[in-house]
Amino acid sequence: MSPSTTPVRQSSVRAHNLALVLHTVANGANHPSRAAIAAATGLTRATVSALVDDLVAGGLLVEVDPPPRTGAGRPAAGLALTSTGPAGLGCEINVDYLAACVVDLTGAVRQRFAEHADQRPADPAHALAALGRLAARARLAAEADGLIVAGAALAVPGLVGDGGLVRVAPNLGWQDVDAVAALRAVPELADLPITVDNEANLAALGELRVSGGDPAFLYVSGEVGIGAGLVIGGELYRGVRGWSGEIGHVTVYPDGRECRCGSRGCLEQYAGQEALADDVPRAAAALGIALSAVVNLLDVPVIVLGGAYAPIFAALRDGIETELRRRVLTAGLAPVTLRPAALGADAAMRGAADTIIRGVREDPAAWLRARA
Amino acid sequence: MSPSTTPVRQSSVRAHNLALVLHTVANGANHPSRAAIAAATGLTRATVSALVDDLVAGGLLVEVDPPPRTGAGRPAAGLALTSTGPAGLGCEINVDYLAACVVDLTGAVRQRFAEHADQRPADPAHALAALGRLAARARLAAEADGLIVAGAALAVPGLVGDGGLVRVAPNLGWQDVDAVAALRAVPELADLPITVDNEANLAALGELRVSGGDPAFLYVSGEVGIGAGLVIGGELYRGVRGWSGEIGHVTVYPDGRECRCGSRGCLEQYAGQEALADDVPRAAAALGIALSAVVNLLDVPVIVLGGAYAPIFAALRDGIETELRRRVLTAGLAPVTLRPAALGADAAMRGAADTIIRGVREDPAAWLRARA
Repeated sequence: MSPSTTPVRQSSVRAHNLALVLHTVANGANHPSRAAIAAATGLTRATVSALVDDLVAGGLLVEVDPPPRTGAGRPAAGLALTSTGPAGLGCEINVDYLAACVVDLTGAVRQRFAEHADQRPADPAHALAALGRLAARARLAAEADGLIVAGAALAVPGLVGDGGLVRVAPNLGWQDVDAVAALRAVPELADLPITVDNEANLAALGELRVSGGDPAFLYVSGEVGIGAGLVIGGELYRGVRGWSGEIGHVTVYPDGRECRCGSRGCLEQYAGQEALADDVPRAAAALGIALSAVVNLLDVPVIVLGGAYAPIFAALRDGIETELRRRVLTAGLAPVTLRPAALGADAAMRGAADTIIRGVREDPAAWLRARA
Repeated sequence: MSPSTTPVRQSSVRAHNLALVLHTVANGANHPSRAAIAAATGLTRATVSALVDDLVAGGLLVEVDPPPRTGAGRPAAGLALTSTGPAGLGCEINVDYLAACVVDLTGAVRQRFAEHADQRPADPAHALAALGRLAARARLAAEADGLIVAGAALAVPGLVGDGGLVRVAPNLGWQDVDAVAALRAVPELADLPITVDNEANLAALGELRVSGGDPAFLYVSGEVGIGAGLVIGGELYRGVRGWSGEIGHVTVYPDGRECRCGSRGCLEQYAGQEALADDVPRAAAALGIALSAVVNLLDVPVIVLGGAYAPIFAALRDGIETELRRRVLTAGLAPVTLRPAALGADAAMRGAADTIIRGVREDPAAWLRARA
């Protein structure tokens, strides 16, 4: 135990309460009044009113028509997240596509642009410049709609190090690529804070946001490579250096096919998008063997199949479940639930945009300061 | 984000500060004075003195000779954890032994009893009665030394459910065994709070306590079965239902040897204690394959080999490292550190006893209330 002795300051109390009010509006019943927010949070009505005024003035909340009248007296105005305030720019580069989207504070996708083309022949600078142009178009279109893009996040199929450096992206053939600098070189993006993360991590976050119900699941992203994002207790587990989830390189057959990574028998060689086209039953069996290892090690009750797996979920399910029943020690005590991803191919890009939105929602005080 | 609006009460402030003072004495420089505790915690000297008086009166701290004089004035008395206060009773049943120990508040082992015999022929009630007698001897001997046993914890090689029910212990042949009731049936243990946990989890906690330095590691417990305990951020990760760490049933060779669990090619069949005796190089390769999966999935930087692996660590190391270099995607970016366990065969039992001690150290207020 390491007890904390940090004192609580007034400014941090206000920041905490601003986030609490915003959270209550975002997650509560539809269009709560100031009085309903006070009741839900335990704050006084006067405090809530002052906080709401600040959030309305700062363009994070809007007043909307009151909910249907249920008692005596004048109905109070309701509050909602604004759809013309801060927005997140989500970008993705993967082996066979580039994409960018803008998501507003309510979580709605307001712009979406994609280009399908094999990125492997392109050098990283060229590919990132093309993605930057796509992202710039998305930003300009969103801002023409009255949104304010608060930042950008990029999803990549690889290992990301400090400062957003892409250390290795085996299926793109990238090594030590400074993706942040490349995107910032696009004039329309030069002023934005830009972050980079693994695509499966971001897709897992996107899935967490839309699925709502599952606080613990493994999201498996089936692309040319295979990644995974592990959500535990409603939080993404990143590993000690941010390099968790490399399920594509879990050994399934120790003396099996050679992999681009230098190893043999990696899951990717049997269940990656290209192998998948050849032999779905073998892909399902290989996935089942690797996922059994995950469940034995981590006791994860739900597995979400995303990317190229989602549309063929029905064809994969039996083969995977057969291996889980055989190989998971606790299979008889508690079944593992398999389901297709809710977000489809856009999961990583949506998850990327959501990280920006979540930043604003978790610390509205910082947004208000920056806009003041 | 789910902001908390729980108010802080006076009684919880005192409980927090009692734990803070105890923590400071336990982890600080040797034998701090009241003034040194005040300086380290930010509490006033008057507050510290009142808290220390309560902890001394409650038998958790003792006053000791002052540290060597370094300035003017009368040297102040130092404070230390007591070695005659609360103690934890740790018990273990494994395939080939029974053991019990008592650990005092300072972490020192004060009593240790073990019996080596194959437990598989014994029915659970018989085995647990024998363990209970061993534990009773350890408790009586410790109490004759002036210790007060605060509770008991039992390590088992299996999956533990709610209320300490052992759901499955494949290598003991146990299913749904109420180990708590069986131990409590021993008259000398009837009054103790008793908990049950997986042996690898408890061994990982024991290792965490003695190793100090590593906030993230996988502890692998090589017994007849193989378990693992995952420590992340200085905390044990238990999985959603408490059933994580079943590395012994990770598939290494999908069409390989039949396992007692009903699957094929489980790690246990190649690197469990009985297979280990036959072929150390094959066991090392199998361990390396399974551990590569762990590192690919979880990005764990340190692997600690315990149980039967610790004494033959030198013979296993090369074979494991060869597989890690080949199969871990990030092997070229950041090496994985392998090391033998510090605690040896007693790790799980020590970890069990430590959970009792930690309970007292983290909530001394509850201990003081119970003794009052």
